[in-house]
Amino acid sequence: MPAPTEFIKYVDAHKDAFIARLGEAVAIPSVSGDPSHRQDVINMAGFIKRLLEPLGVKVELKDIGMEKQTDGSELPLPPVVFGVLGDNPNKKTILLYAHYDVQPALVTDGWNTDPFTLSPDNEGRLFGRGSTDDKGPLIAWINIIEAHVKLGLELPVNLRFCFEGMEESGSEGLDDLIIREKNGFFESCDCVCICDNYWMNDRTPCLTYGVRGMSYYRLVVSGPARDLHSGLFGNTVHEPMTDLILLMSKLVTPNGEILIPGLDKLVAPLTDTERKRYETLDFALTDIEDQVGAKIVLSDDKARVLMGRMRNPSLSLHGIEGAFYGPGAKTVIPAKVQGKFSIRLVPNMTPENVDPLVVKYLHDEFAKLKSKNTLKVENIHGGKPWMADPDHWNYRAAIKATEKVYKKKPDLTREGGSIPVTLTFADVLGLNVLLLPMGRGDDGAHSTNEKLDTYNYIEGTKLLGTYLHEIAVTN
Amino acid sequence: MPAPTEFIKYVDAHKDAFIARLGEAVAIPSVSGDPSHRQDVINMAGFIKRLLEPLGVKVELKDIGMEKQTDGSELPLPPVVFGVLGDNPNKKTILLYAHYDVQPALVTDGWNTDPFTLSPDNEGRLFGRGSTDDKGPLIAWINIIEAHVKLGLELPVNLRFCFEGMEESGSEGLDDLIIREKNGFFESCDCVCICDNYWMNDRTPCLTYGVRGMSYYRLVVSGPARDLHSGLFGNTVHEPMTDLILLMSKLVTPNGEILIPGLDKLVAPLTDTERKRYETLDFALTDIEDQVGAKIVLSDDKARVLMGRMRNPSLSLHGIEGAFYGPGAKTVIPAKVQGKFSIRLVPNMTPENVDPLVVKYLHDEFAKLKSKNTLKVENIHGGKPWMADPDHWNYRAAIKATEKVYKKKPDLTREGGSIPVTLTFADVLGLNVLLLPMGRGDDGAHSTNEKLDTYNYIEGTKLLGTYLHEIAVTN
Ligand SMILES: [Zn+2]
Ligand SMILES: [Zn+2]
Ligand SMILES: [Zn+2]
Ligand SMILES: [Zn+2]
Repeated sequence: MPAPTEFIKYVDAHKDAFIARLGEAVAIPSVSGDPSHRQDVINMAGFIKRLLEPLGVKVELKDIGMEKQTDGSELPLPPVVFGVLGDNPNKKTILLYAHYDVQPALVTDGWNTDPFTLSPDNEGRLFGRGSTDDKGPLIAWINIIEAHVKLGLELPVNLRFCFEGMEESGSEGLDDLIIREKNGFFESCDCVCICDNYWMNDRTPCLTYGVRGMSYYRLVVSGPARDLHSGLFGNTVHEPMTDLILLMSKLVTPNGEILIPGLDKLVAPLTDTERKRYETLDFALTDIEDQVGAKIVLSDDKARVLMGRMRNPSLSLHGIEGAFYGPGAKTVIPAKVQGKFSIRLVPNMTPENVDPLVVKYLHDEFAKLKSKNTLKVENIHGGKPWMADPDHWNYRAAIKATEKVYKKKPDLTREGGSIPVTLTFADVLGLNVLLLPMGRGDDGAHSTNEKLDTYNYIEGTKLLGTYLHEIAVTN
Repeated sequence: MPAPTEFIKYVDAHKDAFIARLGEAVAIPSVSGDPSHRQDVINMAGFIKRLLEPLGVKVELKDIGMEKQTDGSELPLPPVVFGVLGDNPNKKTILLYAHYDVQPALVTDGWNTDPFTLSPDNEGRLFGRGSTDDKGPLIAWINIIEAHVKLGLELPVNLRFCFEGMEESGSEGLDDLIIREKNGFFESCDCVCICDNYWMNDRTPCLTYGVRGMSYYRLVVSGPARDLHSGLFGNTVHEPMTDLILLMSKLVTPNGEILIPGLDKLVAPLTDTERKRYETLDFALTDIEDQVGAKIVLSDDKARVLMGRMRNPSLSLHGIEGAFYGPGAKTVIPAKVQGKFSIRLVPNMTPENVDPLVVKYLHDEFAKLKSKNTLKVENIHGGKPWMADPDHWNYRAAIKATEKVYKKKPDLTREGGSIPVTLTFADVLGLNVLLLPMGRGDDGAHSTNEKLDTYNYIEGTKLLGTYLHEIAVTN
């Protein structure tokens, strides 16, 4: 049962309307990590509800409680959008997940266009925060339902929508909700499809059957009661920045090797068969160089680099809160600085077995500094890595759909980025989870000038729709 | 010729008016380091002009040209306020310097009050950006002239005012102006008084006969063409932050020791006599602990700590531009990061003999990293250290004035902070320069919650006025 031709035609014919709809979504700055944008995140949930209900989807905005702020105050968490479409016991029930929040974005970060105005260029690239991560895919599901409703076509599956608004901020509140609703909203689900990652390159579609987990840390060094003038106090007191920078320098080498003792022993051993798989993926080092726009890959060995991304951990230093960050030359000794770094986790690492090693190592290294400042190490948020069975009918349906839309076999890959909810769906609901990406590897999710190609948006809409038809007939 | 009693009484009687005037000055956010505040800096020059002219001072706002921005555009530099009061060839001519620009300040940095609203507390402390650095002293000179005009008292000296608006941003344009006006505006000057530093503690006035210089550096590491997602690219490419943090960690130890080879050889050798001088200053390690609000001094040896501040160099790490600096947990690999650090220079260091050592060391260390990213090291601005002869009549007059107002002998000290113009006045004009501080060591210049005590503001106004009377009779 391939997707009906009318559906494919409808998608092509409504390209402009679909882009305009994505533009409306991008225009809502639903930045979950910035408390001043919390109302925008909540408004985004309302926007989705207003799109789904006229299409016959029963929508509920699930309140998931409050978020505690660092200053002790509380902010309402954005609701999880639950949607129900179809209840035919003879059909499979597919759970569709996407997130409607986005990463922060300021023009001054280096955007060429306003990040919250979807801006097409003459190559059909649609620039805007959230275009590819994850509003494009989310709106695509809505486009697909609309097409079926307008064409009077019956969907061959029942659908359950679960759209969250805190993905970029640790999916706070979602795990509890999934656990609570395991035998409620989620009860009839047979498998899960998550559209929230990317092709490895700009030519070959892929399905993803594993993602790394993450532990995000805050390393707080405090000293003086207030910021100091470096002229007056330089070489007089222990400076928190000196201590922090030295600690941060002891986490990872320029070559990507993590220096925290014991972490390497947690990584599942590599077999020859597994190494060969990385050697044969349609992915060249030049693809990575193209994606990042510079010849800075860590090695000439393709398998080494792909394993660094897919099956080995990584440690990235993100920045420092509390230090001088502006242009110019401020001569401050900051009183309290917070180093931010994260470790991407792979089987068999978990936040639980990694945290104690990180905390002990940093406190040991700090003790060696003999500083009179104080250190606090905190895990801000984290999630385990995840792997699925790629021989499941869920994957086989997605492979067939990809071959039909893109005339190509998709690569089966594991991915570097964390999507913690993947793991919760797999663990709590006991379901096979498929990651079916829409965007390309150079889309720049989380970066300045994030984009989604019109081609990927439109063909990706066809792909997701076709997948729903294939899954009905795959066993 | 001590200061007339009427003058002292006038200052006491006009305390509230003088505080109100300082409040008007603080309310103008003349942040020279922030282009968006440039018009406020220029407005501040007009504010000063409008106060001085009715008092009989001939004021000229000297245009000193344009400032090149990093993006290639240009901004007008704020004018230097030149003022002339008196031209009697039988009187000495004193050059008074202060600056009317201030450091950046945001409530969100941790201020307890709006930084641009002068806010007294019930201990008489006046909180506000620029209260002590350097608007309090600048307004004090205006108060002194007003007192003499209103009381019909003749000033026993001629005065020349030189108030600049770029001190916190490297005094751009001022050196050139001083050189140009050496035989013009500055020709008749006999000595210089700069009121722009602080007592060492909160009880003993001091005169300062030396200050450290400074070299401020920007360390730019560039890699990818845009920011990257750490999930997708962690352990795949060379990350600029990893390289930068490692380089910054190689500059200074937690104990304040600078690691750049060769710098120690540039420092003038320490004699036993000089060491003894530091042992006898009225300055305890607990004073520093009180000032910084924490027990974080680098040593139990008082002379070691004071020399670290006054006669030895220091290196402070100020922050990183381009990395993640907000609250929360952004999983970015920043594409281009700029580490900011500065070295305080002491005799016989100069930016010219220090720069090559810094640049070579950092490039050598960067080469060791074998990173494919690129490094650029730049000196943003700098100034030589300076020392004056504290036996000059300029100093002896200030000592007498201090004894009269504060009933105490001032400590003769050298200071840690740079005031580059000190050196220019000394070198270009060939004059003795006195640093006569008004504020206390815990005022928090350049920090959050900067303040000036009402006591120091009012007694300091008497001190500066008395100094003008003493200098007329000291030879
Ligand atoms: Zn996402
Ligand atoms: Zn994301
Ligand atoms: Zn100053
Ligand atoms: Zn200053």
